[in-house]
Amino acid sequence: MLNPFYINHGPFDIFEILKLLKTDTKLVENAKAKDINDLLNADKNSITFFHSKKYQDLAKKTKASYCLTTENLKDHLPTNCKPIIVENVLVSTAIVTEKFYPNSVEDEYDDTVIDIDKSEFAQTTNTGKNVLVGKNIKIGKNCLIGHNSIIEKNVQIGNNCKIGSNTIIRNSIIKDNVTILDNCIIGKKGFGFFPVSKKNIRFPHIGIVIINENSEIGCGATIDRGSMSNTEIGKNTFLDNQVHIAHNVKIGDNTIIAGQVGIAGSSTIGNNVKIGGQAGISGHLKIGNNVEIGGGSGVIKNIPNNSKVMGYPAKNIRDFLRDNK
Amino acid sequence: MLNPFYINHGPFDIFEILKLLKTDTKLVENAKAKDINDLLNADKNSITFFHSKKYQDLAKKTKASYCLTTENLKDHLPTNCKPIIVENVLVSTAIVTEKFYPNSVEDEYDDTVIDIDKSEFAQTTNTGKNVLVGKNIKIGKNCLIGHNSIIEKNVQIGNNCKIGSNTIIRNSIIKDNVTILDNCIIGKKGFGFFPVSKKNIRFPHIGIVIINENSEIGCGATIDRGSMSNTEIGKNTFLDNQVHIAHNVKIGDNTIIAGQVGIAGSSTIGNNVKIGGQAGISGHLKIGNNVEIGGGSGVIKNIPNNSKVMGYPAKNIRDFLRDNK
Amino acid sequence: MLNPFYINHGPFDIFEILKLLKTDTKLVENAKAKDINDLLNADKNSITFFHSKKYQDLAKKTKASYCLTTENLKDHLPTNCKPIIVENVLVSTAIVTEKFYPNSVEDEYDDTVIDIDKSEFAQTTNTGKNVLVGKNIKIGKNCLIGHNSIIEKNVQIGNNCKIGSNTIIRNSIIKDNVTILDNCIIGKKGFGFFPVSKKNIRFPHIGIVIINENSEIGCGATIDRGSMSNTEIGKNTFLDNQVHIAHNVKIGDNTIIAGQVGIAGSSTIGNNVKIGGQAGISGHLKIGNNVEIGGGSGVIKNIPNNSKVMGYPAKNIRDFLRDNK
Repeated sequence: MLNPFYINHGPFDIFEILKLLKTDTKLVENAKAKDINDLLNADKNSITFFHSKKYQDLAKKTKASYCLTTENLKDHLPTNCKPIIVENVLVSTAIVTEKFYPNSVEDEYDDTVIDIDKSEFAQTTNTGKNVLVGKNIKIGKNCLIGHNSIIEKNVQIGNNCKIGSNTIIRNSIIKDNVTILDNCIIGKKGFGFFPVSKKNIRFPHIGIVIINENSEIGCGATIDRGSMSNTEIGKNTFLDNQVHIAHNVKIGDNTIIAGQVGIAGSSTIGNNVKIGGQAGISGHLKIGNNVEIGGGSGVIKNIPNNSKVMGYPAKNIRDFLRDNK
Repeated sequence: MLNPFYINHGPFDIFEILKLLKTDTKLVENAKAKDINDLLNADKNSITFFHSKKYQDLAKKTKASYCLTTENLKDHLPTNCKPIIVENVLVSTAIVTEKFYPNSVEDEYDDTVIDIDKSEFAQTTNTGKNVLVGKNIKIGKNCLIGHNSIIEKNVQIGNNCKIGSNTIIRNSIIKDNVTILDNCIIGKKGFGFFPVSKKNIRFPHIGIVIINENSEIGCGATIDRGSMSNTEIGKNTFLDNQVHIAHNVKIGDNTIIAGQVGIAGSSTIGNNVKIGGQAGISGHLKIGNNVEIGGGSGVIKNIPNNSKVMGYPAKNIRDFLRDNK
Repeated sequence: MLNPFYINHGPFDIFEILKLLKTDTKLVENAKAKDINDLLNADKNSITFFHSKKYQDLAKKTKASYCLTTENLKDHLPTNCKPIIVENVLVSTAIVTEKFYPNSVEDEYDDTVIDIDKSEFAQTTNTGKNVLVGKNIKIGKNCLIGHNSIIEKNVQIGNNCKIGSNTIIRNSIIKDNVTILDNCIIGKKGFGFFPVSKKNIRFPHIGIVIINENSEIGCGATIDRGSMSNTEIGKNTFLDNQVHIAHNVKIGDNTIIAGQVGIAGSSTIGNNVKIGGQAGISGHLKIGNNVEIGGGSGVIKNIPNNSKVMGYPAKNIRDFLRDNK
């Protein structure tokens, strides 16, 4: 399951979905659509979406019963999956996702929070002053939570975790022995929306943030939760101050990320990677294992395993140093 | 009016101003000077300033009665405007501005704030815990303000606005349907001062921040108020996390600014502009409408309408990609 | 003395240190080791460390009685200094430093803090709401501390200082007339550790942060304390918003650092330096006096006095402008 926290408001009649989308598609018979998910993870009786030819191999094998797509792409779908033809696949996906998960669009402050001293954690967690906790929270043994921090709804914190002061967490799973320093914002919606003149349309964010064992997050970090998948930080991975991790990013184990680095949406970073200060990684890229990226680099294409790169755009570090003698 | 919030402590005798500036200029008769403003906006009986030849066209038409300027520039002024000759025009402008607006130099914490639950907004605004409000505040209907946020003095918030947690706002006008996420600092003085050995001289900041309808400001943003003009964000303009907007910047409508972007003082950004993550825009530049600026770019000159640029320094994106094959 | 705040838990038997390090080194006689320090500052009866040939000149003159080093380097030491041969000098240094200063490894929130209104500073300091102060604090005359700020343990603040709201300070000396704006984190441990698969080893941080007279720190800044030396900001030096200063950095007087600049660990910046927005300085560099660094630059080598540089990597500004015509 993608997210243990959001409540699926479905199932919905597929005819109701067609009406919502104002599509010309006619389906022969009504049925219940139980969820929406991507091509790989959608089950039978669920809706998926297919908006670009580069996903045609995934599309051929999808188990979904319905797919939001275009006239041009629909013939790639298997016979078990009925196309729903729409003008803009991603906008329609946003609309249907919001129907199933209406609470995933906005991130208002959590008005369910109470003073942790009046909560079930009062005896079991060491906390600073003015700490607030929301609903649907688990906190393991031997945890510390600093002053003025807010653990908003839908958070699981493992054992031996240390959360700093002035930090806000929501929609996140924090595994054992994780340290999160001061002034961080973990689990807010990502910067995903469809630009529309006068009023942009927000893309729902039904993913969460997962931070695995022994990792550390520096002061002032922002780690956004995923839209249709999770944002995940591996084990024993350390982030320095003022780092920004966008939605759907996956970072491997034993990786080191220096100050002010930014990683744009949906990029994947391998294990044992080192990223120097202020480097930026564009969206939808794959950075392999054991990669070293020099400080200040701007990475705009995939980087294979075991490479050392530097520059803007980033290239082999030997070439960078030679070209800049 | 530049700023509805600062109280003008004038008028002052013009002889008193001359004395304050320790200038050799002698004026034939005393009179009241009622305000200080730039060449374009200064009225009769006001003081203006003219420090660089590139503003000579504006100088010729100024309606101001007095102008802080130099021996070399004074002949560009019209006969209605009497020159006051000073050694350093901008330092003198800072001194006179501070005389009229003594509260615009420093940004101490607002000690007038009270708990919002004890304020006039207790019944009309949905707020988290520990929210503070200062004096001279308006808040519209259906607004949300998150935990620990501080609405300092001189703020107007429209209807249906959502302010996150740990956010501080002062000297700002927030229009309807604006979202400001967590940990933002909106309306503080900009980074403007005159470097003087041992003790820099602060430039007063009598401008405000205006954020127009339907816009969104990401987590951890800093938006400084203007010095002699306002800082303004257009309608339906979205900023991602950790963005820095310096004093006097103007951003148009429907513009999208990704994470960790920085825009230096007094630059103007058009409508429908897209700026990729970590890009930087130097000060005093004009970026046209419909411009796209690639992530990581460093823009050091004006960019005409409808251009796509990338690189450091930023150039036409085709040239950037060709040069970096 | 490096740090007036950390308590030295020594002296320890040197035989106990050898056992802790699991080294093969045998010393003829036991003795007390009283402290650990770098090659320059270690006294007689103290331990030092020597891990790279580039420090051989310092090694030759060290007054330390013991030195953590390698088989290859040990012959550079003077006869008064007995080598302790270890596999990894820096890891061993971390282990021994933690032995002497066990509280310097982690930065949990300070659980000794109390509401400032109930402290000795209630009458003498003007403070906002919800201000917390820890133990071992001095605050001078005429200081202001904004809402929700936390002065954690081990802080000295001079006269006429202005601390903003939501700011956290620990292990720091703030001299007279310093301004620190909102949302800053001053004095946290730096990003120093030894990458070890599954669980990195933290390097102790026994240095502090010193901010000298008349300086100003912008909103959202992070200034980490030093590991084996101090992090220091000179007099009348101004930092704009969202600046990151890593551990052991030294910045001179009358220096101006614009928004979003990052300075990596152990670099030294001279007096009267100007650094443009978003510029990055790599670690262990020396930037001279009167240097100007253009916005967006990436500095990866030392810069001599009176230079103007720009670019990534940064070079003479004339060359940068010529190469990018």
